[in-house]
Amino acid sequence: MANLDQELQALMWETRQRTLDQMAAADFRVATKSSFNDLVTTVDKNNERYLTSKLRALQPAAQIISEEGFGDAVTDPAGPLFIVDPIDGTLNFVKQRDDFAIMLAYYVDGQPKLGYIMDVMAGKLYHGGPEVGVWCNDDRLPEPANRNLRDSLVDVSASLLGAGYPGLREVVAQASSLRLYGSAGIEIVRVLKGQLGLYLSNLMPWDLAAGRALAEGLGLAVKSIDAPQVDVLSSNLVLVATKQVAAEVAALVN
Amino acid sequence: MANLDQELQALMWETRQRTLDQMAAADFRVATKSSFNDLVTTVDKNNERYLTSKLRALQPAAQIISEEGFGDAVTDPAGPLFIVDPIDGTLNFVKQRDDFAIMLAYYVDGQPKLGYIMDVMAGKLYHGGPEVGVWCNDDRLPEPANRNLRDSLVDVSASLLGAGYPGLREVVAQASSLRLYGSAGIEIVRVLKGQLGLYLSNLMPWDLAAGRALAEGLGLAVKSIDAPQVDVLSSNLVLVATKQVAAEVAALVN
Repeated sequence: MANLDQELQALMWETRQRTLDQMAAADFRVATKSSFNDLVTTVDKNNERYLTSKLRALQPAAQIISEEGFGDAVTDPAGPLFIVDPIDGTLNFVKQRDDFAIMLAYYVDGQPKLGYIMDVMAGKLYHGGPEVGVWCNDDRLPEPANRNLRDSLVDVSASLLGAGYPGLREVVAQASSLRLYGSAGIEIVRVLKGQLGLYLSNLMPWDLAAGRALAEGLGLAVKSIDAPQVDVLSSNLVLVATKQVAAEVAALVN
Repeated sequence: MANLDQELQALMWETRQRTLDQMAAADFRVATKSSFNDLVTTVDKNNERYLTSKLRALQPAAQIISEEGFGDAVTDPAGPLFIVDPIDGTLNFVKQRDDFAIMLAYYVDGQPKLGYIMDVMAGKLYHGGPEVGVWCNDDRLPEPANRNLRDSLVDVSASLLGAGYPGLREVVAQASSLRLYGSAGIEIVRVLKGQLGLYLSNLMPWDLAAGRALAEGLGLAVKSIDAPQVDVLSSNLVLVATKQVAAEVAALVN
């Protein structure tokens, strides 16, 4: 797996450079998907086409789940599986040119093995997993302090809060303060670094897969709120949090 | 004023270095003010003591407004006036060690002349004003595009949203998406750079003074929601926004 890890790290850096090149040339177009603020760009599509073709060459037997349709229709997570998010935080990418990520994960039999979150503008690759530890570029990350809710900044989906999801406003009221960064990858990185005690949102498989591998490698909790357990194939309401915060949130939302 | 501008820029860089030194030595304490999440640290106090003593030496005739009590009790803004925020975003400073600012402004007869927002961890000083233009370090900032609300990411005080301030939820619903960064300085910088179309919050004089000087230097709107006009001596519900967004928000909240 160490060899695969090195190849996937190199692939993430190559994809970052291709992204920066497309941004510098300003040769990308933006289109809407489900609504005016659900965007996809030609960078998303180019990155996904590049990543999936490289991954198929690397491991022809692996299945691929990816956001924009170049992957497989996966119904069984058995065996090796890659999960690809070519641009996470597309609104930030389009409107801010900052705070977006490229994400990739490697699972075997539905279990996280390796995760990669590239903070493109910062030039920081968060990589690793439960068996190899978690790193930012060449620096190993320590396990973040197991803070409680009152002592934690939290990032909770604004649409779930607005919709009055049971218990969520109480979670925010008990926390130190609310933050919203608009990219699951960037938000999970802040939990990995101990800057946030909680990230809670409705996440698609490609939003969570890499972050889950990294979070579990640092002793953090990754739990589903609306299903018995987190499933690599399903969209779930999920938290990534310190163990203390996860227990407090579970008591408030159930 | 060019001479004063150079001296104030140098002072901001010195204060940044003193802040980083205190962080590296971890020799600061945290105390609460009005509530468990309203914090002040010895870095806030040391920075303010340093800034006010340097400013008094620089312009003995100027009055000083500052957050932690080393300034004057100013009741009349006539003449030269400095406004100091020694650490803006103290919760971020304590919990994240990122996304906080040091801010300084120079007003004459209540009107903004020069503003300084130091993004400490990024090492970026945003400086300038209506008469000298606006700069990030040595690069002049262009006026941001005059985006409308639907096309803009917005940052609106979570406590005002939670309290149901009239029209504010509609502002967020019509915008592209909500972001929350937790430091007025960092949030106003994002408006200066065109990354946010709106920042709206209840701001104390030291939260707004520097950002107002910079925003007005870039053709942005700085307006009070709950008072006839922005006043350098008062706390107000204030927006910093593109002109289009400011007009749309005014129609929704009034």
